[in-house]
Amino acid sequence: MTIMKKPLIGIIMGSSSDSRIMHNAAEILDEFGVSHEDQIISAHRTPTRLDEYAKHAEKSGFKVIIAGAGGAAHLPGMIASHTVLPVIGVPILVYNDKQQKKSEHKFSAFGGLDSLLSISEMPSGSPVVTVGVNKAGNAGIYALKILANESSKIRKMLKSHKQKQHKSVLKESQDLKKMGLKKFVKKKFK
Amino acid sequence: MTIMKKPLIGIIMGSSSDSRIMHNAAEILDEFGVSHEDQIISAHRTPTRLDEYAKHAEKSGFKVIIAGAGGAAHLPGMIASHTVLPVIGVPILVYNDKQQKKSEHKFSAFGGLDSLLSISEMPSGSPVVTVGVNKAGNAGIYALKILANESSKIRKMLKSHKQKQHKSVLKESQDLKKMGLKKFVKKKFK
Amino acid sequence: MTIMKKPLIGIIMGSSSDSRIMHNAAEILDEFGVSHEDQIISAHRTPTRLDEYAKHAEKSGFKVIIAGAGGAAHLPGMIASHTVLPVIGVPILVYNDKQQKKSEHKFSAFGGLDSLLSISEMPSGSPVVTVGVNKAGNAGIYALKILANESSKIRKMLKSHKQKQHKSVLKESQDLKKMGLKKFVKKKFK
Amino acid sequence: MTIMKKPLIGIIMGSSSDSRIMHNAAEILDEFGVSHEDQIISAHRTPTRLDEYAKHAEKSGFKVIIAGAGGAAHLPGMIASHTVLPVIGVPILVYNDKQQKKSEHKFSAFGGLDSLLSISEMPSGSPVVTVGVNKAGNAGIYALKILANESSKIRKMLKSHKQKQHKSVLKESQDLKKMGLKKFVKKKFK
Amino acid sequence: MTIMKKPLIGIIMGSSSDSRIMHNAAEILDEFGVSHEDQIISAHRTPTRLDEYAKHAEKSGFKVIIAGAGGAAHLPGMIASHTVLPVIGVPILVYNDKQQKKSEHKFSAFGGLDSLLSISEMPSGSPVVTVGVNKAGNAGIYALKILANESSKIRKMLKSHKQKQHKSVLKESQDLKKMGLKKFVKKKFK
Amino acid sequence: MTIMKKPLIGIIMGSSSDSRIMHNAAEILDEFGVSHEDQIISAHRTPTRLDEYAKHAEKSGFKVIIAGAGGAAHLPGMIASHTVLPVIGVPILVYNDKQQKKSEHKFSAFGGLDSLLSISEMPSGSPVVTVGVNKAGNAGIYALKILANESSKIRKMLKSHKQKQHKSVLKESQDLKKMGLKKFVKKKFK
Amino acid sequence: MTIMKKPLIGIIMGSSSDSRIMHNAAEILDEFGVSHEDQIISAHRTPTRLDEYAKHAEKSGFKVIIAGAGGAAHLPGMIASHTVLPVIGVPILVYNDKQQKKSEHKFSAFGGLDSLLSISEMPSGSPVVTVGVNKAGNAGIYALKILANESSKIRKMLKSHKQKQHKSVLKESQDLKKMGLKKFVKKKFK
Amino acid sequence: MTIMKKPLIGIIMGSSSDSRIMHNAAEILDEFGVSHEDQIISAHRTPTRLDEYAKHAEKSGFKVIIAGAGGAAHLPGMIASHTVLPVIGVPILVYNDKQQKKSEHKFSAFGGLDSLLSISEMPSGSPVVTVGVNKAGNAGIYALKILANESSKIRKMLKSHKQKQHKSVLKESQDLKKMGLKKFVKKKFK
Repeated sequence: MTIMKKPLIGIIMGSSSDSRIMHNAAEILDEFGVSHEDQIISAHRTPTRLDEYAKHAEKSGFKVIIAGAGGAAHLPGMIASHTVLPVIGVPILVYNDKQQKKSEHKFSAFGGLDSLLSISEMPSGSPVVTVGVNKAGNAGIYALKILANESSKIRKMLKSHKQKQHKSVLKESQDLKKMGLKKFVKKKFK
Repeated sequence: MTIMKKPLIGIIMGSSSDSRIMHNAAEILDEFGVSHEDQIISAHRTPTRLDEYAKHAEKSGFKVIIAGAGGAAHLPGMIASHTVLPVIGVPILVYNDKQQKKSEHKFSAFGGLDSLLSISEMPSGSPVVTVGVNKAGNAGIYALKILANESSKIRKMLKSHKQKQHKSVLKESQDLKKMGLKKFVKKKFK
Repeated sequence: MTIMKKPLIGIIMGSSSDSRIMHNAAEILDEFGVSHEDQIISAHRTPTRLDEYAKHAEKSGFKVIIAGAGGAAHLPGMIASHTVLPVIGVPILVYNDKQQKKSEHKFSAFGGLDSLLSISEMPSGSPVVTVGVNKAGNAGIYALKILANESSKIRKMLKSHKQKQHKSVLKESQDLKKMGLKKFVKKKFK
Repeated sequence: MTIMKKPLIGIIMGSSSDSRIMHNAAEILDEFGVSHEDQIISAHRTPTRLDEYAKHAEKSGFKVIIAGAGGAAHLPGMIASHTVLPVIGVPILVYNDKQQKKSEHKFSAFGGLDSLLSISEMPSGSPVVTVGVNKAGNAGIYALKILANESSKIRKMLKSHKQKQHKSVLKESQDLKKMGLKKFVKKKFK
Repeated sequence: MTIMKKPLIGIIMGSSSDSRIMHNAAEILDEFGVSHEDQIISAHRTPTRLDEYAKHAEKSGFKVIIAGAGGAAHLPGMIASHTVLPVIGVPILVYNDKQQKKSEHKFSAFGGLDSLLSISEMPSGSPVVTVGVNKAGNAGIYALKILANESSKIRKMLKSHKQKQHKSVLKESQDLKKMGLKKFVKKKFK
Repeated sequence: MTIMKKPLIGIIMGSSSDSRIMHNAAEILDEFGVSHEDQIISAHRTPTRLDEYAKHAEKSGFKVIIAGAGGAAHLPGMIASHTVLPVIGVPILVYNDKQQKKSEHKFSAFGGLDSLLSISEMPSGSPVVTVGVNKAGNAGIYALKILANESSKIRKMLKSHKQKQHKSVLKESQDLKKMGLKKFVKKKFK
Repeated sequence: MTIMKKPLIGIIMGSSSDSRIMHNAAEILDEFGVSHEDQIISAHRTPTRLDEYAKHAEKSGFKVIIAGAGGAAHLPGMIASHTVLPVIGVPILVYNDKQQKKSEHKFSAFGGLDSLLSISEMPSGSPVVTVGVNKAGNAGIYALKILANESSKIRKMLKSHKQKQHKSVLKESQDLKKMGLKKFVKKKFK
Repeated sequence: MTIMKKPLIGIIMGSSSDSRIMHNAAEILDEFGVSHEDQIISAHRTPTRLDEYAKHAEKSGFKVIIAGAGGAAHLPGMIASHTVLPVIGVPILVYNDKQQKKSEHKFSAFGGLDSLLSISEMPSGSPVVTVGVNKAGNAGIYALKILANESSKIRKMLKSHKQKQHKSVLKESQDLKKMGLKKFVKKKFK
């Protein structure tokens, strides 16, 4: 089901390994039928593409840019510096069993705090906002909340999405209440 | 062995995955024969149930609410805002091998510090207390200490529980003293 | 200069002392002529107002809610749980010489990290975004970026705002280049 | 106004300098007319008094012990190890202009995190609960919540205390809404 | 080879699981032929044994007490409060694959920082010293350094221990220099 | 005394307030008679100047770029992404009594850790190096060490600079040894 | 392909286990045909070699020293104190499954923060610079940037190295844009 | 009162500004009549003095070395690497109003955590022990505890020192108990 054909959201990330986290943003947008364009823009390996992409995003009529990055995580802040479009940053912390056995660890040693602060602590006048570490899915929902300002259809879908969450938790709570913790844990985790 | 039939303790948690930690609270209460009612109340997915549950807890005559939550962990503080019953928070940090391999990591990136501070640093006038990260069992014992103010039976049981701990450590210490560290470690961990 | 009369932005904060930080959000909105409605909603002292305010915000046609809070900082996340409107959180850390001399320190002991994490680390499905600690001004600009999706006038103003920043930095850089650091510091800071 | 004459709460602290924070616990108990006994018990300078005090507390019929301590903050955990009474810990961080100018700084260098963790991270089987850093007032209210289990009078007072908070925030919010942030800040902080 | 028969060092730990770390202290003492007595003293589960053990240590003529503990880690500080003997603390962080799969994680969530601070940040007048997290072997060597003040034999052994370290590193360095990093790593780690 | 007229070092900083720290880099270069060019390049307010400056630096024959920035501190990494010249980052944390009294605090809430990590944790392939927080003077000396590879004059000056440090510490040590700590402190700090 | 035969870079590390990380520095130097000499210098186990090595490095005509160390990580700072050559520090955090199962964990408990600060926070007058945790490869590239000041050949190679990075990211971005996140992740990670 | 004329303790520190903290170690030694020799040894500005001082300390018959240092704090570890004497480290964090107003802040930006970890996290085989941040007085008492192994006079003095502490706390506790917190705070802090 697709509401809009032209991409309204630009999803970018600092490296291809971030795609494993960022696809959660894509997934929720797909679920809502909202088109997105996905690219890899490295603030450090392709710095000249920052300005180029920003112009492309404005020209394409994107409403929101979702930008994921790990480590020093300069991408969200740098894209935001090149455009007046709202940018949602996603601090990325990749655990990868294979990578952990390689000698130079690719993942951050600081549990994502380095990336979180590098995105949130932008100077006055140059805002980026951030969701939690690895919460690309939440960035997707937030983008939908912004789109909902102009689309009552999306707003309605967001509300029914919320109600489904509510019902599903309620259902689990009733199961738990009936069974008690002991049985519930046994059934659920064994 | 059951001392009281009507639930005296309400155990709640933010999501069903927290049940793996929270059942340690249930276990100690069961051991003491103290009834409890277990539910899932999500501060974020079922916000309107907060007030409802608080009223239910007061009407049911609960003496203590034990509330476990991870990540931003708003549940303990929000329930406490809706009731005058004492609330014990349990900051939850779930490690799950399966989840770690999924792309969007469900567990907190901050070792539980985010949840601990979100529970402890409540504003003046709205107290929640917290036990250590994942220490649901301790929350259970603390609830029993509160109940013991009105039940000499529970107080006696707590005292004998303490004495058993004392004896068990003493026994181990005597073994260690006799064997020395080298043999003790060999026997215990191989 | 006022572009729109009906408030488009709801600014809320957890306590009156947060107003000293939050008025920076108001200031930038005023500068752009965008109306806002300002309230104090305490997640802990007025929990029943959360749902009420959320409904009020949707009915009033607010496009964005800016929510500032310190300490455990549950306000942004709790409001977001009650509405599909986009919420921008502002972690607040108040330094106040007078308060420091009072016995129970009102400000956070954790440099704002507690509030930052309490806002950012929301569970999957319930997004709040956050700006940096005390960056209420940036939250204001971000709200304008969202509004600019529907208003070419605001977008134009944002662009000229950006250009002014650029020019002002350029001017300072030229002064510094001419004078050199030694003279520049003397002139600027003595 | 005094409801009960015999002390129901024991307030202890690790050193006399902690009294500046701990008197906030006393203040709220006094306001509710609940008697308390105040002592200095240093886990390190008077270790043999720990057991003695624990016995005294049980014999005196205390219902709750509130224990404040800074730095390594062993007092709450050590008292809890000697008694089955519920203990509420208060991590203390004292800022003192005079002390800052003395050569050996008396206050903690870690913003209270050392004390918070030293109180919360108790081993399984030996629970202490903690409120936020310097939140002695909240410890007092929490103690009242425990007492309220046996006293409908205290419960009623707690509820009206809550309502007063609600009303006072509501009043401020109305002022803010009317004046707007700019005027409100000017009036309040100048 | 045994220099002294009567134990000169008391090794204690908060729980039997700490023995896996603490046996590294025993190992180095054994290597030097220095007798030690090993016990489990839990500050929280056997609090009355603290004073008893302290007296025992002084009567037995111990010269140093090595005390390991994890989590809130009160043991080193509490023993030091009961005796004038020098106490060396060992902050313990146990990783245990089996424990990680159990629901209530036994190990600290804070990487040992909680234990390190709980040992080091003792109040003025009550010193404990600490080695690094899990560095029980270093605590053993430090105890030997203290004993060496009275035993030229131990001092000589310490010096030759140092020289062996020097030679072994030198040998490895020569291998590395000859082979270069590429070959060295291949040979050493595959 | 000026050895070289053409600037060999480019000093840049993210904002004019950083000049108070960065002038310490200038000071040591001036002392060695090494010319430098000073500019303000804001990664966020003047993003298009990054590439321009990088080209200018290479054309001008700069040997090293010293880049200071606070908060999210993207400047050093972004400049390094545009050039093959070695970049030395300086994490900046500005304390300013006047600013602390203003409502939106300009300085970082994280003690410089945010800036340090944002500079050091660059991805593989895009190196920036960093000195300690606010250690602009050290960045200056490090730049001189790099220049010394091509200038025996600067190398000689660095060696005599080192010897002066050595002598000055030695002199103080002799004073302290003679007087003892008590008198030394009295003389030095009163 | 070898440009220079005489080693221009000294690579040192605190222990042989660091070689698994440090060989990434060697690898990039080898790729550029730049000779290096590799040694193990332990600040703690071979302290007298520090001065000796520093003299050797200057006599050998090294242009840069790359020094890797974990834990307290004194090596980079101590070598820098003995020479005027530029030293690049590499904070090392070794994860080793085998080591994790041994009782005394060899790796740092602090995620590399201890090593990072121990290298960066050198006193005024004694600069060391640091790259990110485990970023030995970046230290290698930075050394090449310093050498490039004297070698247009290396500078050219660095530029083409940068262009290859750019192209490779661009290629991946085009793939991602075409496929979209869903397919890209499937193809790349399954 | 002087028990021993020949210095038994060597007190060293990394810079003259550390003397304001380190004189607290001297003070307690003076109180006990134990001679000490005080010097400034900078690991970074006078690296060649490390070995020299270590030999001097052994020849002089020192029993303990107390070493204070701030920032990267390499001094305690480096001295320990040169001698078999026990070294007690003191992490130093100097607050200085005058220095805070100077442009390059001399004090550590990390609350002493950098210095604490740099002292405690020494590699296996090279132990240094540390007291808490700025706790030079505690280092002095710990040195006395080591000396007491050979001097029953010092041991006796330590015991009576402990008893005085006990009595003084007891006295304050009695005052507090009598007055209650309200009056006690008024009397003590106004």
